[in-house]
Amino acid sequence: MKIEIKSDERLDDLHINGYKIIQSPNRFCFGIDAVLLSDFAKVKVNETAVDLGTGTGIVPILLEAKTNAKHIYGVDIQDSSVDMARRSVEYNNLGDKISIVKGDIKEFRLDREIEVVTCNPPYMANSGILNKVDEVSIARHEVLCDIEDVIQCANRLLKYGGRLYMVHRPSRLVDIMYYMRKYKLEPKVMRMVKPKINKEANIVLIEAVKGKSMGLIVKDELIVYNEDGSKTEEINRIYGY
Amino acid sequence: MKIEIKSDERLDDLHINGYKIIQSPNRFCFGIDAVLLSDFAKVKVNETAVDLGTGTGIVPILLEAKTNAKHIYGVDIQDSSVDMARRSVEYNNLGDKISIVKGDIKEFRLDREIEVVTCNPPYMANSGILNKVDEVSIARHEVLCDIEDVIQCANRLLKYGGRLYMVHRPSRLVDIMYYMRKYKLEPKVMRMVKPKINKEANIVLIEAVKGKSMGLIVKDELIVYNEDGSKTEEINRIYGY
Repeated sequence: MKIEIKSDERLDDLHINGYKIIQSPNRFCFGIDAVLLSDFAKVKVNETAVDLGTGTGIVPILLEAKTNAKHIYGVDIQDSSVDMARRSVEYNNLGDKISIVKGDIKEFRLDREIEVVTCNPPYMANSGILNKVDEVSIARHEVLCDIEDVIQCANRLLKYGGRLYMVHRPSRLVDIMYYMRKYKLEPKVMRMVKPKINKEANIVLIEAVKGKSMGLIVKDELIVYNEDGSKTEEINRIYGY
Repeated sequence: MKIEIKSDERLDDLHINGYKIIQSPNRFCFGIDAVLLSDFAKVKVNETAVDLGTGTGIVPILLEAKTNAKHIYGVDIQDSSVDMARRSVEYNNLGDKISIVKGDIKEFRLDREIEVVTCNPPYMANSGILNKVDEVSIARHEVLCDIEDVIQCANRLLKYGGRLYMVHRPSRLVDIMYYMRKYKLEPKVMRMVKPKINKEANIVLIEAVKGKSMGLIVKDELIVYNEDGSKTEEINRIYGY
């Protein structure tokens, strides 16, 4: 079967299991956030995971490579993303492990409760100043869903004891913790990510557990670059080099 | 006027303005938390501050030395603390700048709204396993007040735009952020404190502003000790050495 790569798209190597991903530089290419999230998220043998706002499907594909998940769903509201992610899944012959589903996070649900939800949501609050709402702004701004919608959806999907793994900006930490507590997903592990050891954190990783009692573990920071500009040992491990 | 120092008490030098403090090693001696809080808290000229759960009065005395506050109130529910803190205030001749007030955080209020609240509350949740509720356990455990009580009190005391500065344990971060948002005190600055650069944070400093919109600045971590065990430059500056 021949998988179509459109004229504005390219096929990038994921450096793991020989997997590749279709993405469009004009729209959205995955960044370090998706890579960190799929390393931070733990999916155990026979567990099912749902990635909310999956975009190109990068997180489900990396999770399939890195874990023994039974099945992984990627959910996105945009037809163009769903189409592109489905072609990547087919390209890697992962149709029996990954399902890309078109759905709105505000109402999405499955017919049974699952163990893991991941999410790399739009980071920027909807300030109302966007000139036009296009595919890129939907992926980056809280136009169609916000932190509360994502967390509420995770609550619907997860079984008691199930885990939500989220990557976001530290500036939104209060929203994240407030809504996680509100929807009974207690933040249990937090890890800040810093570009260099003396810089301020610009990414935060959070694990929340449904129905768990309070008590947060704050891990030591993950540092991306050494002082000399080379990648740190941990980042090289995460990227699999 | 002769200030009484009781048999179980001692008089310690604060290394600032020649100030001293009376404290009892059997009960409670101030630690790094109070010192960090009184450096993190900014009190501007002519502003009034209230320190909730003031204990020995260490935070008001340090704030008086470090800022141009108009007046500082220290509030505590325990007679023994109020008595001891009042004697320290008198010893340093600060009676016109600091008032130590007996009061319950659950109902304490002033007759006007003020600019700054500081708090170094009991850190440990009330698990109900305490054998006896004594002065030490009241200072360390949430027996008589918890995070929600403190934040609710700060909301009552502060004017719009007024600031709450709190020091706590990172494990309680979700409670802190949840109740701050709930009571309209938006966390605006967070700084983690780590014993050494490669260790996990064990103290967190938070500044919240009443009525402010969302958006948190996460500062780089404050490190207490260098690798060789000496204190870092920043800690030496904070302690005034």
